[in-house]
Amino acid sequence: MVTSLDPYTAKAENNDLTPQQKIEGLHEIVQSVKTGMLTTRSADGHLHSRAMMPSAPFSGTQLVLAFVANNASHKFEEIDNDSHVNVSFFNTDTTSWASYSGRAKVSRDKETIAKHWSTGLSAYFGDLEDGVHKGDENDPRISIIEVIPEEIRYWVATKGSVGRAIETAVSAVTKNCAAPGELRTISKAEIQLTQRLQSTS
Amino acid sequence: MVTSLDPYTAKAENNDLTPQQKIEGLHEIVQSVKTGMLTTRSADGHLHSRAMMPSAPFSGTQLVLAFVANNASHKFEEIDNDSHVNVSFFNTDTTSWASYSGRAKVSRDKETIAKHWSTGLSAYFGDLEDGVHKGDENDPRISIIEVIPEEIRYWVATKGSVGRAIETAVSAVTKNCAAPGELRTISKAEIQLTQRLQSTS
Repeated sequence: MVTSLDPYTAKAENNDLTPQQKIEGLHEIVQSVKTGMLTTRSADGHLHSRAMMPSAPFSGTQLVLAFVANNASHKFEEIDNDSHVNVSFFNTDTTSWASYSGRAKVSRDKETIAKHWSTGLSAYFGDLEDGVHKGDENDPRISIIEVIPEEIRYWVATKGSVGRAIETAVSAVTKNCAAPGELRTISKAEIQLTQRLQSTS
Repeated sequence: MVTSLDPYTAKAENNDLTPQQKIEGLHEIVQSVKTGMLTTRSADGHLHSRAMMPSAPFSGTQLVLAFVANNASHKFEEIDNDSHVNVSFFNTDTTSWASYSGRAKVSRDKETIAKHWSTGLSAYFGDLEDGVHKGDENDPRISIIEVIPEEIRYWVATKGSVGRAIETAVSAVTKNCAAPGELRTISKAEIQLTQRLQSTS
């Protein structure tokens, strides 16, 4: 069995949590880091990433990420070419991280934009003084990139930095495997469960 | 021109630096964050990422990243399927980030492993007590993933958090565009230049 060759991953996996508990652990990481790295794929196969801050606030069961973005930027060409994207969050202080694997859906719908727009965002667009590109919520450059996840994996540090160092050191001595945290997966079925909570029938 | 529709990116771009200066700025980010998110692509097109710490130390002009990894893990199947990968680094404190877009090359070469191996890594492999998988540098699970970049982009915060907030607020008022940092690109040609510095003819 392949898993037995990777005791680090096997030991870190925690499958004894409810979907709600796993979502709470995920949201703690995202909210502590605030900004994720959105990875997209260009037509020649290259993967590019850049920092993006998801629009807030999160509802308690929300797993879809939404980003307000300028559709003149390259990432839109890449999403048009291949809608598979990844959004990762890494916390420098705790070393906790999260990976959202999913599909990007671009929306220019007025209601969707209004839902995610905040005036502070104007600074990222600028007023081009042509009467059209004003950097307000009616600016035609504004689009929403929704990332609909198909699988989310995250690793949450369960010990502080001293505890992590000790566990690693002890493991090296005892020849056991270090796992100073937990690896958790929110499956496609669990994600679909949360989407049903948010849709009208 | 598309660029003029994206004044944030245009203002943030800094092309007035030598390759060496750009590499130094990049290394500061990588060394402050220590751990990157490696994104790979599965056969069904999904992009997955996970935290990986590149092997140290960096030489002054080094742009290739090397990771010691367990070849029983899923990322190897993904790299076999598509060698295009991304490695991103995000600094929670400064919001600086870096994106390495490149190809992964897997090596099981003894000399390459010895170059990157350190005893502390044993804890991540564990001794399976079969006399073969001992978690030492001869363990057949150990592989090196080298990421050969084709383009590196990074954003470095040039103002502290207070300065960033002020610039954003002032820009919102004056309707100019906020750029509290610099966006820098290390091109394919510049990367090749550094590779020639490290190869014998």
